[in-house]
Parts: sequence; structure tokens; C-alpha cells
Amino acid sequence: MALIVQKFGGSSVKDAEHIRNVARIITDTYRANNDVVVVLSAQGDTTDELIEKAHEINESPSRREMDMLLSTGEQASVALCAMAIEKLGCPVISLNAWQAGISTDSNYSNASIKTINDERLRAELDRRNIVIVTGFQGINRRYDITTLGRGGSDTSAVALAARIRADLCQIYTDVDGVYTGDPRIIPEARKLDEITFDEMLELASAGAQVLHNRSVEIAKRFGIQLEVLSSLDPKPGTIVKEVAKKLESTAISGVARDENVACIAITHLEDKPGVAYRIFSLLAQRKINVDIILQSIGRDNTKDITFTVAKGYADEAIEELMEHKDELNFADISCDTNVAKISIVGSGMINHPGIASQLFEALYNVGINIRMISTSEIKVSVLIDAKDSDMAIRAVHHKFFGERAGA
Amino acid sequence: MALIVQKFGGSSVKDAEHIRNVARIITDTYRANNDVVVVLSAQGDTTDELIEKAHEINESPSRREMDMLLSTGEQASVALCAMAIEKLGCPVISLNAWQAGISTDSNYSNASIKTINDERLRAELDRRNIVIVTGFQGINRRYDITTLGRGGSDTSAVALAARIRADLCQIYTDVDGVYTGDPRIIPEARKLDEITFDEMLELASAGAQVLHNRSVEIAKRFGIQLEVLSSLDPKPGTIVKEVAKKLESTAISGVARDENVACIAITHLEDKPGVAYRIFSLLAQRKINVDIILQSIGRDNTKDITFTVAKGYADEAIEELMEHKDELNFADISCDTNVAKISIVGSGMINHPGIASQLFEALYNVGINIRMISTSEIKVSVLIDAKDSDMAIRAVHHKFFGERAGA
Repeated sequence: MALIVQKFGGSSVKDAEHIRNVARIITDTYRANNDVVVVLSAQGDTTDELIEKAHEINESPSRREMDMLLSTGEQASVALCAMAIEKLGCPVISLNAWQAGISTDSNYSNASIKTINDERLRAELDRRNIVIVTGFQGINRRYDITTLGRGGSDTSAVALAARIRADLCQIYTDVDGVYTGDPRIIPEARKLDEITFDEMLELASAGAQVLHNRSVEIAKRFGIQLEVLSSLDPKPGTIVKEVAKKLESTAISGVARDENVACIAITHLEDKPGVAYRIFSLLAQRKINVDIILQSIGRDNTKDITFTVAKGYADEAIEELMEHKDELNFADISCDTNVAKISIVGSGMINHPGIASQLFEALYNVGINIRMISTSEIKVSVLIDAKDSDMAIRAVHHKFFGERAGA
Repeated sequence: MALIVQKFGGSSVKDAEHIRNVARIITDTYRANNDVVVVLSAQGDTTDELIEKAHEINESPSRREMDMLLSTGEQASVALCAMAIEKLGCPVISLNAWQAGISTDSNYSNASIKTINDERLRAELDRRNIVIVTGFQGINRRYDITTLGRGGSDTSAVALAARIRADLCQIYTDVDGVYTGDPRIIPEARKLDEITFDEMLELASAGAQVLHNRSVEIAKRFGIQLEVLSSLDPKPGTIVKEVAKKLESTAISGVARDENVACIAITHLEDKPGVAYRIFSLLAQRKINVDIILQSIGRDNTKDITFTVAKGYADEAIEELMEHKDELNFADISCDTNVAKISIVGSGMINHPGIASQLFEALYNVGINIRMISTSEIKVSVLIDAKDSDMAIRAVHHKFFGERAGA
């Protein structure tokens, strides 16, 4: 008997038929003598529809009221799913995030989970109930409803799994696992049986949209084994854990692309100590995450600093730096959004010298120019022109994984 | 500066335009230097749509999960209305029933309010916030969401008004007040400026669907002045209070019709003590409300008992009595649903002898047969054939209120 947390995304519960399917997966798990906690997102496009409804009334409503509105989506999901499970004859109860004791900070629309009081959850499991919890939300100190922002339901699921020390946290999506590359672009990409937390983190931040980083971080911190699998194609997915078995000969686990990148260049900065510190502390104060940073070698007593941020933060970053133009004393600032980041990720990289050079070679062979390079112990990322990115990931995937998977 | 509770029904908030209209009424009240608490129903047909969605998945879901589902309707309403008020520039906060401290019993889908902890509500009013509360719902001892059943939002509004000792509780609907008769059938019906709680109670139980009885009972018990008025036609409505000014010369306040009536006849019951008691205690155990009761004078050592119940309970009542046929020892039981109840209501009746005979005269003049009669201190009801009911209420209204209102 194991304690399993199962999370289903919005597309897995988008209508009555899909909810019935999810209910079958849940009751099968329960009847195999497991305790089951389920975390659900809002149905299909519900969240977008609610946002549209709100904007029809007020184009910039308070985030507090927006969270009050959006949280109805998951509440409807959990009630409907509980009804489907009742119909299949298993004992079940749905809980709101506040009933499940999920406390967050007060950062409405992007809140972080602080603590989980699992008293109620435990009591329901002791009664052998399947427990269905609303993902994506919590309550703050004032007992107001908050939502967790992007990837919030994954985070809810993993945080709950950590709190109740679940044996496994299954993340059901519309893909059947983590692939060596995006199968929509690289048909020969193959599914990984296992991957490490660190690789998953690097893949996620490199643009693979399977799991949200926050959820992987929590899973890693608390040692919660994750499984990414499909709700429509019930077969083993990809296990994410601390140490993973490697695919036979390859040192890397996957190739990822991130097109949500803007490249900001500041030129002719005075070459004195503390300039870089000042720039990036200004951005940190505005909570702008910086990814790759490139600093030119000083020349004529000036230097250039180039860095990347997510596209949505580019304007704010430039605005912040322009406000301090006199103090920073630079000549010019520019922004290029026609870029993409290609990354290879793999914990085996450490023991396989020359991985980076194989990446550069693959790109050179198809004539792609590299604009920036960033490396970590288990990742190499390059920034290239956006127009080259399809060709680039195919070439890189081919270099590391060959023409056909399993051939 | 007054403390005013305003309740808006589903049709008053059915879309963005209606919500904007409601927001204007609320902010106008607030800007006239009042403290305002608002209670809202779910938008338009939301509740019916949610029920349909549930039944697509499970034709008989648990009432607990149904309440979990349905309560999302009011939550969306209050958030959207708060956004509309934000846009009009007034400070506002929406609260769920559980945030507003509304505790109920655990009778899911038909719960009763037990207590209201108004701490949060008071704190928000002290901050000069307009407070928007979800109607129709509460939480029970286990912190599970309950709904109050029919007329629930009216009940929420009046209960909140009682708890915070509001100066006035305004019930906004799609009619502009309480009329002497249903204006859809009696064009000359006139709006009442004032009516007493008791009259309103009798009118409601006599079939007038303006206010739900539970809300009027609470208002009467706590002395909360009610006003029934229209959200689309902002002019004074009908005030409901303990002592009301009367329309000039009339002893009665209104004529009402109830078509949701079934007449059950039990014939040839043994004429011995305790038979009636036994019949109606069996029905009471099944929580079936009995309205008019008629008992024939004993003959041949047997008697007949005829009574009325709401149509929806007729089958259950007959089933219950048939189960005890041997014990009760009756010859036959029959049910007639082609009946209607016509009532006249008015606290002035006590001081105006002959009101009942005027009613009978009005019906006699148009050739309508009376099947049953029931009287209280402020009401006279008659049961007639359903097919005669339009003609009956017109004749009765004409008898007491004349041809043209205000003429």
C-alpha cells in the first residue's frame, strides 16, 4: 500500500468525458490498495474565460479579486471529479485549498506556499477517502484566497506530496513523458525512462514545458519521486528522481529550446569595479530574472554587458536601467527579441569532456552563428538567431541521439 | 450615515452590463455616506448550468459535492461585482460566506444559518470598504461548504442584516415592489408602499414569489426593515415592516394565487380519536408540509380527511399513507393536482368583519365553486379548480381594489 499524489492538468479534465477518464485512473489506483490524493486544475479554458469575463468589466482589476474569481475554476473541477468518482463507487471528498490547509504569502496571482496543515487531509485518508484538492491556490494570513501563478497546480501537487510524505507524485499531462527533444519538431526524439531532478530543472529553465521549475525544486528538496505521464495513454511515463539510470551511451538527457528570450545589450559602460553588481542589483530589486550574462573584455576603459531576460520583462528592465543612465554612465542600450536559446542538459556531461565542443560542431556544420554561450555543470546553452532555432535543435538532437530512436 | 444591506438576485447580475448597473446602485448608496454590505446570487442561469454539468457526470451526486460545485456561482458573482466597483473608484472587498463567518447546519443543499461571526465584516466596514458577500451559502462545523436552498440569498441578506443590526435591508429583484395581485394577470394591480411582515409571510406562503418566507421570518424576528425594489427601475419599492400604513380604504393588502398545490383525499376512515393525529404525524416525520386540512363530519362511523401539499410531495405523501393503510383503515386515497389556491391577505381583516364573505361573493358572482376554505387572522384561502384561477383572482382583486388603481 502506497500513498500516491496524482495531478491532472486542465486538458485532462476539460469535459465530462475527460473527467470520467480521470476518475477511472484515480479509482484504479485506489482499488490497487493505495491511498490517493488528487490535485486538479480548472477545466480546459475555464481560467482564460474567467479572465476575459473579468476584463469585460474592469481591464485592470485588483489581483485579490482576480484570485477570488479564478479560484472558482478549480473548485468546480474538484466537485465534478468527486461526483464522477462517487459514480464509480469509491469513497471520495473534494477539498478547497483552504480546507486542505494550504497557506501562502499574500502575493496575489503569484503566491508561494508557506505551510500546509495536513490535519484534515490525514483525517480523510484515515477514513479511506480519495481526497481531491484544488490546485493552483491557497489562502493567506487574512484568509483571503490566493493563486500560485504559472505551473501552480504542479506546485500544489508536489508540495502536498512533500507534506504528507507521498511515495510518488504523478503529474498527468497531455504528453506521455519527458523526451530528449520536443517531439513536435524532432520526430525521432525518444522518451526518457528516468531523469534526475537537476536535469529536469535545467530542461525546464531551458524551455521544456513539461514540468514547472518550482514543482521540481520542491520535489528535489524533499526527495519526492515524480512521474510525468499521459492521462489518455496509460503507460509508464518518465520518472524524475535524485539519481537516474542513463540511456545507454549518451551523456546528455535532452535538447531544449526557449524562444521566450530577449537579449539586452548595454554598450560603453565605464570599466570600473561594481558596475555589473549595480546593474544586476537594480534588476533584482524589480524581481527581473536574468539568465545568460556576457561581459566583454575592457577596452578604451569601457566595457559592454549583454544579458538575457524573459521577453515579458524586457521593457521593464530597459526602463529601470534608463532611469539610472547617468549613474551607470553607458552610451547605449538595445534589445533584441529575435533570439532563441538552445540547451543540452545531462548529468553525465561532467564525466564526458568535449560535450560542449560537440554542440558547437553541430551548429557549425549547419552554418549557425552562436551569439552567447553559458555553461553549468550539467547544461550548455547557446543563444542564436530565432530563425535558425528549428534547424539548430534538429542538428543538435541528431548529433547526440542519432537518426532514429531505439534503432 | 446608515448601515444598509443590499441583495441582488441572479437576473440583476446576469452579465457585464447588469453587473455595472448593480455596481452603480451600490456606489451611489455608498457615496451618499452609508456603510454598504451587498449580498449576491449566482449570475443568471449559472446555477442551472452547473446542475446540468453535474448531472452529465452523475445523475445523483452527493449533496455535499453539489454544494461545493454550486457555491462557485456566487463566488464568481461577488468577485466580478467587486471589480466593477473598483472601476467606479470605491474601496471594496468580496467575501465568501465562510470568510464572512456564516455558519450553518450540515443539511447540505437546504442548510439553515446557525450563527454569523461578523468580525471580518465589521473590520472591513471600519476600513470603509463596501463588502460583497456570497449569498445562498455557508459552512458547517466541519468547514465544508453548504447551500441554503430556495430563496437562500434573501435569507443570507436578512440574516447578515440582523447580525450587524442594519438600518435597512434592500432586496433588489426584477419587480419594483409588492403588488396587490400578480401584475402579469391583473393589469390593474397596484404597488403597495408598505406591508407588514405578517402580511408578507401570508402572501409568500399563498404563492406570491417576491420574497422567501425564511427571510421574512428572520426580518420579523429581528425587526429588520425590508424594502423590495427593482434594480433596473430605481424608485422606492415596497417597505416590509412590523406596522404598515394601509392603502386608504382597503382591509386587505393583496390577492395571491398558488398553483403548486395537490389535494389528497382519504375516504371512509374509521371515526375514532387519534386518526388525524396519526396521519399528520406520519407526514411530519417525512417532513411533508401540509397546508389546508378539511375533515368531514363523521357519518356511518367513518369520516373523510382532505388536505393539500405542494405538488412535489404528493407522491411521497400517498406512498407513506399507503404503507400504513391497514393500520389507518381507510377505504380509498386519491390525489387531484388540478387545483389552485386563491388567498386574500391583510392585517386589517381583523377589524373588518365580512371580508371572507366578500371573497365568497366575488367567486359566486363568476360561478366558481369553492372546494376547501382555510382562514387565519390575516388570511382567507380557498381551493378551487385550477382552470378557474385566472378568472378568480381577477374577480377577487376587482372586488377588493376596484377597477383601476389610483383612479
